[in-house]
Amino acid sequence: MTLLGFLDYAGVAVFAATGALSASRKELDVIGFLFLAAVTGIGGGTLRDVVLGSLPVFWVVDPGYILVCVSMGALVFFTAHLFESRYRLLIWLDAVGLSAYCVMGAAKGLAASGSPTVAIVTGTLTAAAGGILRDIIAGEPSVLLRPEIYVTAGLAGACVFTGATVAGTPVVVASGAGALTAFAIRGGALRFGWAFPRYKPRPGRSPEDVLR
Amino acid sequence: MTLLGFLDYAGVAVFAATGALSASRKELDVIGFLFLAAVTGIGGGTLRDVVLGSLPVFWVVDPGYILVCVSMGALVFFTAHLFESRYRLLIWLDAVGLSAYCVMGAAKGLAASGSPTVAIVTGTLTAAAGGILRDIIAGEPSVLLRPEIYVTAGLAGACVFTGATVAGTPVVVASGAGALTAFAIRGGALRFGWAFPRYKPRPGRSPEDVLR
Amino acid sequence: MTLLGFLDYAGVAVFAATGALSASRKELDVIGFLFLAAVTGIGGGTLRDVVLGSLPVFWVVDPGYILVCVSMGALVFFTAHLFESRYRLLIWLDAVGLSAYCVMGAAKGLAASGSPTVAIVTGTLTAAAGGILRDIIAGEPSVLLRPEIYVTAGLAGACVFTGATVAGTPVVVASGAGALTAFAIRGGALRFGWAFPRYKPRPGRSPEDVLR
Repeated sequence: MTLLGFLDYAGVAVFAATGALSASRKELDVIGFLFLAAVTGIGGGTLRDVVLGSLPVFWVVDPGYILVCVSMGALVFFTAHLFESRYRLLIWLDAVGLSAYCVMGAAKGLAASGSPTVAIVTGTLTAAAGGILRDIIAGEPSVLLRPEIYVTAGLAGACVFTGATVAGTPVVVASGAGALTAFAIRGGALRFGWAFPRYKPRPGRSPEDVLR
Repeated sequence: MTLLGFLDYAGVAVFAATGALSASRKELDVIGFLFLAAVTGIGGGTLRDVVLGSLPVFWVVDPGYILVCVSMGALVFFTAHLFESRYRLLIWLDAVGLSAYCVMGAAKGLAASGSPTVAIVTGTLTAAAGGILRDIIAGEPSVLLRPEIYVTAGLAGACVFTGATVAGTPVVVASGAGALTAFAIRGGALRFGWAFPRYKPRPGRSPEDVLR
Repeated sequence: MTLLGFLDYAGVAVFAATGALSASRKELDVIGFLFLAAVTGIGGGTLRDVVLGSLPVFWVVDPGYILVCVSMGALVFFTAHLFESRYRLLIWLDAVGLSAYCVMGAAKGLAASGSPTVAIVTGTLTAAAGGILRDIIAGEPSVLLRPEIYVTAGLAGACVFTGATVAGTPVVVASGAGALTAFAIRGGALRFGWAFPRYKPRPGRSPEDVLR
């Protein structure tokens, strides 16, 4: 299996595990675990394939991805109680999924469109999409709205992969460099609280205070 | 009209009614009723057609589905006050829609991909998608996160239909059996509070309590 | 550049600005501004292209739209503090975006399907989709659930454009009339609090009060 193929399955599998951990936090039943695992695992890649017009989407072509999601959902169902903090595990697995998905999204976007700009956008968008979808469906506070760096990590990984590939670097080096860049940035943000300075912070008021 | 064709219109119509009932609960105006009716009625089928690559989606090919949604939205707008509990009606119509949609999703998935695994996934996913979309847009607590069995009913219906069809059962029998299975399970869950035992329940803490 | 082409870029640009203003209200970092600007700017058009089967979507074909979103996101990042009320600005730009997008959505729907019904639906749906997506991702109270007229403005604009085009009016007149109709209705609703009388208002109870 190539490194890109491995990253593809790894991204789906760890995002599926984060979906199942969300199901555990919401105390859903076993089918709820499998459902959230599947939606989170394949959500970002589904969006990627749809906008690129690569239809039917990847998991219809190769249902093996579904089995990966179902297996991860079942595994988490039987082991989630072993972890002292499910949220901490969720957030670190989410970082791994983000790193794998930003490279895969950029690779598919570059192959389908030939445009580095499109590759960077599909890489960033699909890396973030799975986690956003999971948080919206499970009613969790969105990982996107937390103060530490999140989207930036996916963007950096997509840029490194795309830049290296356009420069002629072998795909195994480009994809490894992209995934490691994303993980290093997101991991640093989680471990050390890295965050950009915010510009003139001022929280929004509620619509009712502003209008009328 | 075939049983499958009837299930298709019935699923769209009753999901549209649940969307309009949500609009009623949120006290929207008549156009809000029509909008939520349309989004909920066609949402699951749109997702199904997109992932299968069956484009343009069904309601662009046959705009009659839109007229069904608009009619249901208007009907609910003028009758919603007659019901003592709109939420109870919503949740039972949602059960009917779930039953019809899980068979239609599986039937289209099987026809498009030939894979029973894909059929079961598209059946389950599209049966749940309309209700999830409705609850997210209307800001309702998601039906998916309620304690009783929900996704399981759609999954069981999709499995029964797919299994029966692969075994050579006539389509009218397979689709009837699938829809009845789904409705019996979801109806039992609503009437008798059927729920899977949850594994080591432990609610999730807020991210702020876990991280830093 | 044609009026339709101008409306297209204008709709993407002002919706991108509203996404960045949402990011400002949530105190995200600069990448969060660019991300929400991109998702909001291209969200409605992406949905439109997908349901019509016009794939790959418009911003994969012409990445210039991405650059428009990124520029608007950066512009808002450096100027948002200059406005006394970011929400008021957001809601008025949203009205401009709604007006541009309802015409573009109807125009593409009519060209792709030939059906006025489909054109009106794609116009209304895609005009509302960007704002709904922005509010869901940013965790804002949805603009759709506010009491004033919202979807109605997009629907009226789409009807005027579609009706005029079917009647043979030149495209520049039809698109101008459609956009102005939508903006006049939404603007009036914002300025004067226009709202439809609601039918027998009665807020929904929580699911827990209704079931069991």
